Amino acid sequence: MVENSIFYNEDAFGKLSEIIDNESEKFILCDTQTKKYCLPYLSSKIPTLTKATILSLPKGENSKEWESAIYVWDKLLKKNADKHSILLNVGGGVVCDLGGFVASVFKRGITYVNIPTSLMAQVDAAIGGKTAINFNGIKNQIGSFYLPQYVFIFNDLLLSLPKKHYLSAFAEMLKHALIADKKYWEALKQIKNTKTIINHQHLIQQSINIKENIVAQDFKDCKERKKLNFGHTIGHAIEAELLKNRKNILHGEAIAWGMLVEAHLSWQKGFLSSQDLEEINAVIRGYYYSLPTYYINENNLIKLIKNDKKRISNNSNITLLKGIGCAIINQNCSDSEIRKAVRFTFQ
Amino acid sequence: MVENSIFYNEDAFGKLSEIIDNESEKFILCDTQTKKYCLPYLSSKIPTLTKATILSLPKGENSKEWESAIYVWDKLLKKNADKHSILLNVGGGVVCDLGGFVASVFKRGITYVNIPTSLMAQVDAAIGGKTAINFNGIKNQIGSFYLPQYVFIFNDLLLSLPKKHYLSAFAEMLKHALIADKKYWEALKQIKNTKTIINHQHLIQQSINIKENIVAQDFKDCKERKKLNFGHTIGHAIEAELLKNRKNILHGEAIAWGMLVEAHLSWQKGFLSSQDLEEINAVIRGYYYSLPTYYINENNLIKLIKNDKKRISNNSNITLLKGIGCAIINQNCSDSEIRKAVRFTFQ
Repeated sequence: MVENSIFYNEDAFGKLSEIIDNESEKFILCDTQTKKYCLPYLSSKIPTLTKATILSLPKGENSKEWESAIYVWDKLLKKNADKHSILLNVGGGVVCDLGGFVASVFKRGITYVNIPTSLMAQVDAAIGGKTAINFNGIKNQIGSFYLPQYVFIFNDLLLSLPKKHYLSAFAEMLKHALIADKKYWEALKQIKNTKTIINHQHLIQQSINIKENIVAQDFKDCKERKKLNFGHTIGHAIEAELLKNRKNILHGEAIAWGMLVEAHLSWQKGFLSSQDLEEINAVIRGYYYSLPTYYINENNLIKLIKNDKKRISNNSNITLLKGIGCAIINQNCSDSEIRKAVRFTFQ
Repeated sequence: MVENSIFYNEDAFGKLSEIIDNESEKFILCDTQTKKYCLPYLSSKIPTLTKATILSLPKGENSKEWESAIYVWDKLLKKNADKHSILLNVGGGVVCDLGGFVASVFKRGITYVNIPTSLMAQVDAAIGGKTAINFNGIKNQIGSFYLPQYVFIFNDLLLSLPKKHYLSAFAEMLKHALIADKKYWEALKQIKNTKTIINHQHLIQQSINIKENIVAQDFKDCKERKKLNFGHTIGHAIEAELLKNRKNILHGEAIAWGMLVEAHLSWQKGFLSSQDLEEINAVIRGYYYSLPTYYINENNLIKLIKNDKKRISNNSNITLLKGIGCAIINQNCSDSEIRKAVRFTFQ
C-alpha cells in the first residue's frame, strides 16, 4: 500500500470528499445493513455522496459467492461504469473482500476504496489488498492481490456494533501484538471490556499499522506475510469442526483458541518460555472462555489441520511464536506435537 | 514477460517436458477442436502429457463467458488443484484469454502457460498477459493483467488451420510492422499468399518480439502499449456495424480496413506522407479486398467510434502513424476528419 493511503476520521472525511468531487463515476457497494446504518452517517458528513450510485447486497457471508460478483459487474456495466470509475466499499469483511475482487477484474482493474464498518474489517479485511470470493461454499477460493487506493477508518461507524463483534476483532488485534509488538501486547491486555476498545483509537491504529507494515514487506504472501497466519491453521480447523457440529462460533474466538494451541506448539519447540506460554493463556482465556470445547474431537482436528496444510502446500507450515512480539513462519509440527498441544489447551 | 519466457518448436518441447515432469498438478484447458487436433500431436512428442487432467470447453467465442470460468474453477477444485498447480492453455484466443483469467484469480493466482494453436493467438492473444472473459456478450469486460510463465510456439500446430485464419492473423502482423518496424513491413509485403507465412517462422517470431517488447515497456496499458491499438478503434466499429447487419467478418479483416481509415487520419494530421498512405493502401488492399463496404453506414460508424472512445476515456485517443514503422498514441480526431477518412477508404 502506498504511504498515506489510510486516513482516519476528520482526515478521512477530507480525502473522501476530494474523491467524491472528482470527475469519475462513483459507485458505492454496501449491504442491506450498512445501507441502513452507515450510509446515512457518511452522507450527513459528505452530502455529495448521494451523487454516487448505490449497489446493495443482502447482508451476510452468503453474499460472498460469485453470483454477487456477477450482479455487481452487471450493474456497473448497465450504469456505464468505465475504466476511470471508482468503487467505494462500505461494509464489513464480505463487502470489502468481494468489492475488492469485483474492482480488481472489472475492465482489468478499476480503483477502489475501502470504508470498513466493523472493527474486524478495520483491523483485517480492509487492509492489505487480499480480495476474494467464496466458491461453492469454500472460503476465499477465487481472488486477487489488488490494493485499495485508500482505506478510510471512521470511529463513529463502530458505535452501533453488537458486543460480540468487538470480541471477535480483538483476537486479531491480540494476534498482531503477539507476532510483532510486545509493548502493544502490554497495552492491549489493559483492556478489560473489549467493547471499550473504541475509546482507544490509537490501539486500533496500531493494529492497522502492524498489518500494513507486514504487508508492505511481502504483498504476495510468500514469506513475511505468513506471520499473519498465527493462530489460523488450528483456528480454521476449530471453526470447521464446530461448524460440522452446527455450533456457531465467532471467527475471532476460533483464532483465539487456535493461538493457544499454536503457542503451546511454540513452547514444545523451545521457541517460547513457560512463563510466556502461561501469560498468553491467562490473557487470552480471560477474554475467550466460552468455547464449547466438548464438541472438538482431537482426531478430527488433526485431519482438518492436515487438509488445511495440504491446501497451502504439501509440507507443514505453521506460524509459531518466538517469544511475545515475534513470529517464526514455516514450522513443521508432527501429529503428536499437535495432539499434545490440543490436549493441553482443551483439557 | 521475463526474458526467455517464449520458446519455439524443439526448445519448446524441451521446456514443456520439464514442466510436465515437475511435482505440481497439471491441468490442460482446451476446446473440443484443439482436444481433437492438437493434444494428440503434443502427446506424441511428450507422452507424459497424458498425466495431466484435461478440461475441455465447447469451441468458439461463446465459451468466453463467465459460465466457462465457473466450470473450470469448479473442476479445478474438485480435482484438488492447489496453489502450486499449473494450467496449460492449449487453444486459440478464447482458450488463452479465458484460461489466463481463470488462472489469475484461482486461489489468488496460479501459474499458467500458453500453447497457442492459431497464428492469431501466437502473434497476439497468447503474448502479453492481458487475460479476459466477455460479459453479457460484451468483449473482454472482466479480466486481469497476469503474465503466463511461458508461451510455447509450435509451428506444426498451425498446419491444419483454414486459409482465412492466416489472413486474419496476418493483419495483426502488418500492424506490428506499421507501428514499430519498417524493415519488417518490407519483408511482410513480399508474402503474396498469407497461408505461406508458416514457411517463414522468423517472420512470425518477429511479430511476437515486437509485441513482447512493447508490452515490456508498459504492461498495464497506460502509454506505449496503446500503440497496439492501431487500426482497432475504427476496426472495432466496422466489426460492430457489420455484425449488426449479420455480415460475418474476420477480426483481422476489420482491423485491416480500420488501419486504412486510421492511416488516412494520420495523413490528414500531417503525420504520414501521401506516398506512405498510397503504399499502405496498395499493400493492405492487396490482401483484404472483399469487405462488404456497402453495409457500412458512415453515420453509424461515427456513433460506434464515439461509443468506443467513451468506453476508453472521455477524450478521443486514437493511435495513428508517424510514417511506416512508427506509431503515435492519444490523438484527437474530429468527426469531420473521421468522416473524410471513412469516405476516402470506402469510396
